Amino acid sequence: MAPPDEDASELSDVTAVIPAGGVGTRLWPLSRASAPKFLHDLTGGGRSLLQATVDRLRPLVGDRVVVVTGARHADAVRAQLPDIAAADLLVEPSPRDSMPAVGLAAAVLERRDPDAVLGSFAADHVIGDLDVFADRVRQAVHVARTGSLVTLGISPTYPATGFGYIRVGDARRVPGAPDARHTDAFVEKPDAQTARRYLETGDHLWNAGMFVVRAAVLLELLEAAHPDMVRELRRIAADPPSIEQRWGSLPRISIDHAVAEPAARAGRVAVVPAPFAWDDVGDFASLATLLARTGQDEALKVLGDRRLVVNEGSTGLVAAHGGRTVVTLGVDDVVVVDTPDAVLVTTRAHCQDVKGVVATLQRLGREDLT
Amino acid sequence: MAPPDEDASELSDVTAVIPAGGVGTRLWPLSRASAPKFLHDLTGGGRSLLQATVDRLRPLVGDRVVVVTGARHADAVRAQLPDIAAADLLVEPSPRDSMPAVGLAAAVLERRDPDAVLGSFAADHVIGDLDVFADRVRQAVHVARTGSLVTLGISPTYPATGFGYIRVGDARRVPGAPDARHTDAFVEKPDAQTARRYLETGDHLWNAGMFVVRAAVLLELLEAAHPDMVRELRRIAADPPSIEQRWGSLPRISIDHAVAEPAARAGRVAVVPAPFAWDDVGDFASLATLLARTGQDEALKVLGDRRLVVNEGSTGLVAAHGGRTVVTLGVDDVVVVDTPDAVLVTTRAHCQDVKGVVATLQRLGREDLT
Repeated sequence: MAPPDEDASELSDVTAVIPAGGVGTRLWPLSRASAPKFLHDLTGGGRSLLQATVDRLRPLVGDRVVVVTGARHADAVRAQLPDIAAADLLVEPSPRDSMPAVGLAAAVLERRDPDAVLGSFAADHVIGDLDVFADRVRQAVHVARTGSLVTLGISPTYPATGFGYIRVGDARRVPGAPDARHTDAFVEKPDAQTARRYLETGDHLWNAGMFVVRAAVLLELLEAAHPDMVRELRRIAADPPSIEQRWGSLPRISIDHAVAEPAARAGRVAVVPAPFAWDDVGDFASLATLLARTGQDEALKVLGDRRLVVNEGSTGLVAAHGGRTVVTLGVDDVVVVDTPDAVLVTTRAHCQDVKGVVATLQRLGREDLT
Repeated sequence: MAPPDEDASELSDVTAVIPAGGVGTRLWPLSRASAPKFLHDLTGGGRSLLQATVDRLRPLVGDRVVVVTGARHADAVRAQLPDIAAADLLVEPSPRDSMPAVGLAAAVLERRDPDAVLGSFAADHVIGDLDVFADRVRQAVHVARTGSLVTLGISPTYPATGFGYIRVGDARRVPGAPDARHTDAFVEKPDAQTARRYLETGDHLWNAGMFVVRAAVLLELLEAAHPDMVRELRRIAADPPSIEQRWGSLPRISIDHAVAEPAARAGRVAVVPAPFAWDDVGDFASLATLLARTGQDEALKVLGDRRLVVNEGSTGLVAAHGGRTVVTLGVDDVVVVDTPDAVLVTTRAHCQDVKGVVATLQRLGREDLT
């Protein structure tokens, strides 16, 4: 376990909450329901996305890391994070989207400390510029202590239509948070023209699902529309084994819809612009771009065992996870993903459609491969 | 073993000689030095190219089939042809090109019958229109009995630059061989313009290496320039175990250069035009074309286990021999060849360059894969 640095005492009221869910279907056959994206090393750095997420947060919060994951992945999470305390691994009996997951963590942390602040960070994103990341998290904590729900808004680098956006308002004057701004709206995924306008004006940031908020405030905001959910989450926090009976009754709802959007309309949300490198590694095309940014300058990017890849004149990406030699010859923008029981061959332009392949395999009764 | 039909007695002096050599490097990773092309079923018909070659000749010559192969492949050939007599499998201690291989068969057959006629047919070609094939072989036998070296010349279907050609001369009047023609030249692989002219005029046929000739005539023609080779071959035929000492001294030379070209210049060669479907399955692009011609009308041709292949919007060829699922998504003219230890991804346009991949693997010390 990394020793906490000076920030750990400065942020001694803060716990990192890591919702570890989501299959990452567009990364099939690497990512599967049985071994989802967050369990994989997708950057070749030797750490899974989950491990890298914890590594990034430990210097800020020390031991205070809570992971929320599904029952199916609890063993794998424990294996990847051997230092995590049993009480800090919250296991969902079934998937219920992000609000119940983060809400459960909030209820647990509120019992530990009524003034606890939680910072929620997805387990399957890649972040660069860690000094900037740490600075913006610290700023967000300062604002969160005043009772706001604080989001970190990513500075767009291209006119993305696959993300939601956060509208940036006037400066929010909080000591220790010089960059904090008001926000009054979370915006759904825009069309291409709108996305280009957002990029030009700079008045909208990507919503990467990073929230910093006092646990009690999150539950208070949730209570407005979902009082039953808050009551159930607090009962589970008080009596953890009761989760087996209570969990199934919780609605499937995202934290954006349940809390962030109504709270923004009510003026309770702040945004800290976050100008660090960020990637949600949504598909193999973005993975290839990410590998290029993190140092691979060959025309063909390689993930996995480089010794297994022989390339003559191809560009694109090969993920060599099948233990076999992969030869690519004269194919432009190819994507080859080799695993022991399945190999995918496609192009960067078709990486979004990998989701449909998984649907096809399920229709064909090949759930063993998905 | 197929029972010989009426042709077997008509052709009772004829033995089919099948040189089974050649790796088929451009079909890597399916074809390997350890498991060359002729041992593979490349049409999905359930028989290897070697087995199909024997199947095609048995109705003409019955049991009289001699296979010449390398020591490395003798066991595999015996396994694929369990009915072949030990004396009819000639095993070369080392590769010496086609002249020593066919010459050895000629010397062996000459000892069995001084008037023996041999018909030499490569083990790794695909032939359609078997009635036409049988008819043209029979015509060639009639001409061969007169003392000529007779080739079967394939009617070109496109302006190929990868084959040698046979120039067609005047009619050769031999009873039982209405289509036989004189020829005075074997032509090396032409440039594209010349190949187009050949196709237009129809006066040149593809040289597919099919010869019909009396064994004694072949040795006599060979003797003109290579008397030592003929002497050694006859000594091996008289004393088969001596092949181990004698074989290594034989020159590496093709039957075209050693016999056919000089004999053509001397007016000793005839050609029987052979308007049957023929394919040497030189690379995966021609394999895809062949599978289209033999009944696969899907945009993506499949060799191997069709249940392993899932295609969404791709065209080309998948050879599924790795036991794993192969998914192709939105790739045009793709070629994917999956085997247990290597997978090749290329395009139809680059199939000729597969040879270079094998050279690269050898340079990298990966002979285990070649």
